Amino acid sequence: MKNVAIVGASGYSGEELVRLLLSHPHAELTAATSRQYSGQTLAQVFPKFAHHPRARTLRFTEPKVESLAKEAQVVFLALPHGVAAEFAVPLLKLGCQVIDLSADFRVHSPAVYKEFYAHDHPAPELLAQAVYGLPEVYRSRIKQASLVASPGCYPTSILLPTIPLLKAGLIQPTGIIADSLSGVSGAGRKAELDYLFVECNESVRPYGIPKHRHLSEIEQELSLAAGTPVMIQFTPHLIPVNRGILTTLYLTPVATPRDSVADQVTACYQAAYAEEPFVRLLEGKALPDTKNVVGTNVIEIAWRLDPRTGRLIVMSAEDNLVKGAGGQAVQSMNLMCGFPETAGLIYTYES
Amino acid sequence: MKNVAIVGASGYSGEELVRLLLSHPHAELTAATSRQYSGQTLAQVFPKFAHHPRARTLRFTEPKVESLAKEAQVVFLALPHGVAAEFAVPLLKLGCQVIDLSADFRVHSPAVYKEFYAHDHPAPELLAQAVYGLPEVYRSRIKQASLVASPGCYPTSILLPTIPLLKAGLIQPTGIIADSLSGVSGAGRKAELDYLFVECNESVRPYGIPKHRHLSEIEQELSLAAGTPVMIQFTPHLIPVNRGILTTLYLTPVATPRDSVADQVTACYQAAYAEEPFVRLLEGKALPDTKNVVGTNVIEIAWRLDPRTGRLIVMSAEDNLVKGAGGQAVQSMNLMCGFPETAGLIYTYES
Amino acid sequence: MKNVAIVGASGYSGEELVRLLLSHPHAELTAATSRQYSGQTLAQVFPKFAHHPRARTLRFTEPKVESLAKEAQVVFLALPHGVAAEFAVPLLKLGCQVIDLSADFRVHSPAVYKEFYAHDHPAPELLAQAVYGLPEVYRSRIKQASLVASPGCYPTSILLPTIPLLKAGLIQPTGIIADSLSGVSGAGRKAELDYLFVECNESVRPYGIPKHRHLSEIEQELSLAAGTPVMIQFTPHLIPVNRGILTTLYLTPVATPRDSVADQVTACYQAAYAEEPFVRLLEGKALPDTKNVVGTNVIEIAWRLDPRTGRLIVMSAEDNLVKGAGGQAVQSMNLMCGFPETAGLIYTYES
Amino acid sequence: MKNVAIVGASGYSGEELVRLLLSHPHAELTAATSRQYSGQTLAQVFPKFAHHPRARTLRFTEPKVESLAKEAQVVFLALPHGVAAEFAVPLLKLGCQVIDLSADFRVHSPAVYKEFYAHDHPAPELLAQAVYGLPEVYRSRIKQASLVASPGCYPTSILLPTIPLLKAGLIQPTGIIADSLSGVSGAGRKAELDYLFVECNESVRPYGIPKHRHLSEIEQELSLAAGTPVMIQFTPHLIPVNRGILTTLYLTPVATPRDSVADQVTACYQAAYAEEPFVRLLEGKALPDTKNVVGTNVIEIAWRLDPRTGRLIVMSAEDNLVKGAGGQAVQSMNLMCGFPETAGLIYTYES
Repeated sequence: MKNVAIVGASGYSGEELVRLLLSHPHAELTAATSRQYSGQTLAQVFPKFAHHPRARTLRFTEPKVESLAKEAQVVFLALPHGVAAEFAVPLLKLGCQVIDLSADFRVHSPAVYKEFYAHDHPAPELLAQAVYGLPEVYRSRIKQASLVASPGCYPTSILLPTIPLLKAGLIQPTGIIADSLSGVSGAGRKAELDYLFVECNESVRPYGIPKHRHLSEIEQELSLAAGTPVMIQFTPHLIPVNRGILTTLYLTPVATPRDSVADQVTACYQAAYAEEPFVRLLEGKALPDTKNVVGTNVIEIAWRLDPRTGRLIVMSAEDNLVKGAGGQAVQSMNLMCGFPETAGLIYTYES
Repeated sequence: MKNVAIVGASGYSGEELVRLLLSHPHAELTAATSRQYSGQTLAQVFPKFAHHPRARTLRFTEPKVESLAKEAQVVFLALPHGVAAEFAVPLLKLGCQVIDLSADFRVHSPAVYKEFYAHDHPAPELLAQAVYGLPEVYRSRIKQASLVASPGCYPTSILLPTIPLLKAGLIQPTGIIADSLSGVSGAGRKAELDYLFVECNESVRPYGIPKHRHLSEIEQELSLAAGTPVMIQFTPHLIPVNRGILTTLYLTPVATPRDSVADQVTACYQAAYAEEPFVRLLEGKALPDTKNVVGTNVIEIAWRLDPRTGRLIVMSAEDNLVKGAGGQAVQSMNLMCGFPETAGLIYTYES
Repeated sequence: MKNVAIVGASGYSGEELVRLLLSHPHAELTAATSRQYSGQTLAQVFPKFAHHPRARTLRFTEPKVESLAKEAQVVFLALPHGVAAEFAVPLLKLGCQVIDLSADFRVHSPAVYKEFYAHDHPAPELLAQAVYGLPEVYRSRIKQASLVASPGCYPTSILLPTIPLLKAGLIQPTGIIADSLSGVSGAGRKAELDYLFVECNESVRPYGIPKHRHLSEIEQELSLAAGTPVMIQFTPHLIPVNRGILTTLYLTPVATPRDSVADQVTACYQAAYAEEPFVRLLEGKALPDTKNVVGTNVIEIAWRLDPRTGRLIVMSAEDNLVKGAGGQAVQSMNLMCGFPETAGLIYTYES
Repeated sequence: MKNVAIVGASGYSGEELVRLLLSHPHAELTAATSRQYSGQTLAQVFPKFAHHPRARTLRFTEPKVESLAKEAQVVFLALPHGVAAEFAVPLLKLGCQVIDLSADFRVHSPAVYKEFYAHDHPAPELLAQAVYGLPEVYRSRIKQASLVASPGCYPTSILLPTIPLLKAGLIQPTGIIADSLSGVSGAGRKAELDYLFVECNESVRPYGIPKHRHLSEIEQELSLAAGTPVMIQFTPHLIPVNRGILTTLYLTPVATPRDSVADQVTACYQAAYAEEPFVRLLEGKALPDTKNVVGTNVIEIAWRLDPRTGRLIVMSAEDNLVKGAGGQAVQSMNLMCGFPETAGLIYTYES
């Protein structure tokens, strides 16, 4: 049993962490900060959690490092980039395990960070010890980590389907295209006109083209998997659902007989993910659908080899707030703390 | 631990039962029937359950009474009215506990049943033993029951806020109006033009006016609570959400000084529901919102006394598929089987 | 042909006025003000209007009374209450015809205005000359008016179905209940958390209970129709559609034989609305549906007499931004300017 | 003035044709067929058209060729492929002008038709005279045509942005990827479980991968534009909006200095579309958004050259039922009949 805290608990990712941690069998939520809601109970701000006794008593507080370090052994940072590092540095010094959901520690290179986030890295001295929190790829390192940089929502939906293929040398590292569709919660709980109901409902639109910030971590991880620098095309779109990311990947198999490609892809994904509790490889005619993963930590993956073009189309679906944010962060916590990896993340009774 | 079966498991209520029972700590789902999907696994038909091992192995079967009675001690019937009774009769004879989500055993009077459902009651001999499955009202009787008639979705949203007030004599039994808004899953998984996405999205409409079938059970239960025949006005509307019912009730307090009314209503609801795990009495400025109950077995209730008109406005929100269907049925099962009443119905870890 | 201006043209009502006036056969949009977008063309702010040549050249300006009076003979005010009057006073002095979509001139009594809007009326001297812009009720007065107070969205949906019944003495003036459901555009284009997509989608909720500001004009007009003070119960709800209001009215017929009530209601509505171009009396089994009126200036009305309770249920559907705001304002302009009443408001070709 | 008929007028494309033709200044809708609704007026089936006098009198009829030929000079076929040809053949013989919205006459080669539609072409003798109804490409031929094959919704969204670039030799004809997102009306008004509100709302999913039928006409037209066979990758997705298609195209510029590419693309689109009434080239930071084209015959196009990858990303937005179906068909009718091309398709008053 560990005491855990959430800094920035009133945004959508923070709220999702609250949901997951209130029900976690090995974690006790002892602090949740929010400048805006300081003094109110979790239940007052989020009535849907009011059936949890703790939500009726725990109050949002102003974020203070020393209090946090006293109240929690594990601290989740659900803060904007730049701000997150300001908390990570002292919390680590005070002995906390830190899981950061911002972009601050995802990219290894301060120069790349500055290129994509437009300011100097706030704590470059910590970059070496930060572990990219993608458990299916870095499980053993996460277990040893005191600072985990939990991946972005889009990167998760792109990396999990692509990394095994690159590592196995089954696809070319050039020409990769990721076309992604995200629900509106991905934009955060921000009072901006662009995200009003009337502006998003009955609307579909691309944005952030052509250089979305998430490219920095996506290309870093794909390059590591491929063993060579990888540059991809990434196009995000906003669609009128609350939650969910659907990514369609356009990949080029390395030259081989066609039948052999299909067998190799099947074998590659089986080897990588058959035993993974949160990766669902779809079979038969099934294709990913965000409605089948919403509320869960599961990512669905399916693929088709186009016999006409020779291209490999891989599709994934995840909940941007769970596998793409809070759920994956809890998965990392489970690993860091020696809990069962699925604790608090599946709806079945765990005896 | 009990073995349980679901007859008619591929409709929306059936699917919700599958969801809840797959994760129930004291129930093992051993059979699920569906003529349409017979032979397929639960996971094939409902990919979102595929992370449950049982969903990957359990196959839908044709509904056969004798097999069901062998495979399960508790059987849920998620069937159309008329058909449900055909299963209930033999299953009870074979010793099963039966929880019927149809309307077949909700109304005590065969004449009223015929008036509202337009055919003779299929098993009037069972009416005397059937218990109306509203645990907050009939808890002790449900514990003894072998046949529970689980309430309709609209009735639950109307009865729970109204019964305590009628029992306490705080409102007049005449002139009650219930204006309800339901998500589209309330119409069932039926391939009809009226429920296509394009016909429901960006649409709001009343229907079934003025004599919806649910009036039969609503008025029966309100009459029992009031000790006098009650006839109400009920207007359902279809709104473009997947799940959720929002009911607004217009009630007339019995003549008393106004301040006293407010105190009495507060005291009445506190006495009735303060200890109920699935009734959330909202405080302060909070008003019910379906998004705060979706996916849970909770009903939210708030009320306002209008100082201008003297009327009492009571509002409730529930998930029509959980507290309004599958969740409430599982709550009854818990009572019938001696399990903790909240087992499998709250997201917290139950040790 | 008249030159017209819109003050506050970037809110949802203002945008709707832009849409209607750009296509109006007898009006030329010569000015549109918006502090936020000053300097940009209409097409830049609202790309959907870019196929209108004028939208590509006309630029939003800062609102200045003297310029407006030079550029336009008719000025629409789509401003918050309180602010609208500040423009109306000088514009009228400079000879403009003013159509105000705010609440500033809807209520005849400064005391009632203060009760509901919480500040002194900004221009009580104009109240006597302002005409409530409900053409089906005040057509002849609107034709003579220089200042029209265009009705609120909820009031329109309530008044049009109720006034003829009250005037004919067919319903009792007491105990009227109006239960209304509004799309999110009714909240205006405001950057507030409550109206974010994620907060409204998959959500249904009441609000503003029990004393919504629109009661002031609703009760004023119902009282005038009834010839006696009328106080009603009004409950607004927010539903996840962009546009549309669905109102359900609970009314009590005056005591008469039942068959006669039905005939009288039919006759009453026929007499009132059979010739009205924007009132659609539904026949047979049809019930109002917002999707059938969205984008049009039509209000649908249907009614049912409940043989069990004796109550009269009347339902209406309108587009809150058209018949409930911009369309009705244009309808008033047509009357004020001597244009055909339907000019610019129906999609048919007008020869 | 021409008399026009719609065969299959109760599907979504047919309904859209009804909407457009009821308001068309030079067309009189004299017949609308629907087996399902035969005998009912247009207003009874589509209440939203009830304010058109003709919709209140014109009744759906059974489709009979000889009656149609008597009642109309122009006939729109909004029928399934295969069935459409059965009407086209005799209607042409009887002297009608035919605009077919099905796939029957879009593909020039009967062999390709059979490959994609899985049955022999029903009227190969007509293929030579059929003109592909994309006015921006085939305007002069459409003016002379008696049989127009109106393009599919996806093809329109892909062809209009791509053809000018191919014709100008600015992009390579290989490796083209079209990733498309369609509203649910694209699936037609079919009572199938997959298109129920609950199955589509809060869901995003790919389908029809990798060989959607629309590829046949897309590749035919791209090949003609390129002067060489073109094979593309096309991935359709279903998203929860009623109307709208958003297409993202991944294209490879032919090798040239980067600055020059941007200038050439700008010049190419300007030359192709600056004067087109229904193509909106977006400027500055604007990107396509389906909400800006819904209900109109406009297609929005924007593009970005990615300086990192060198790729050209082109995005388009259209209303699948207007520019993607009924509106484009009316545009063709206007050309065939010598009406102004924009007649009945823009909301401005046409004198």
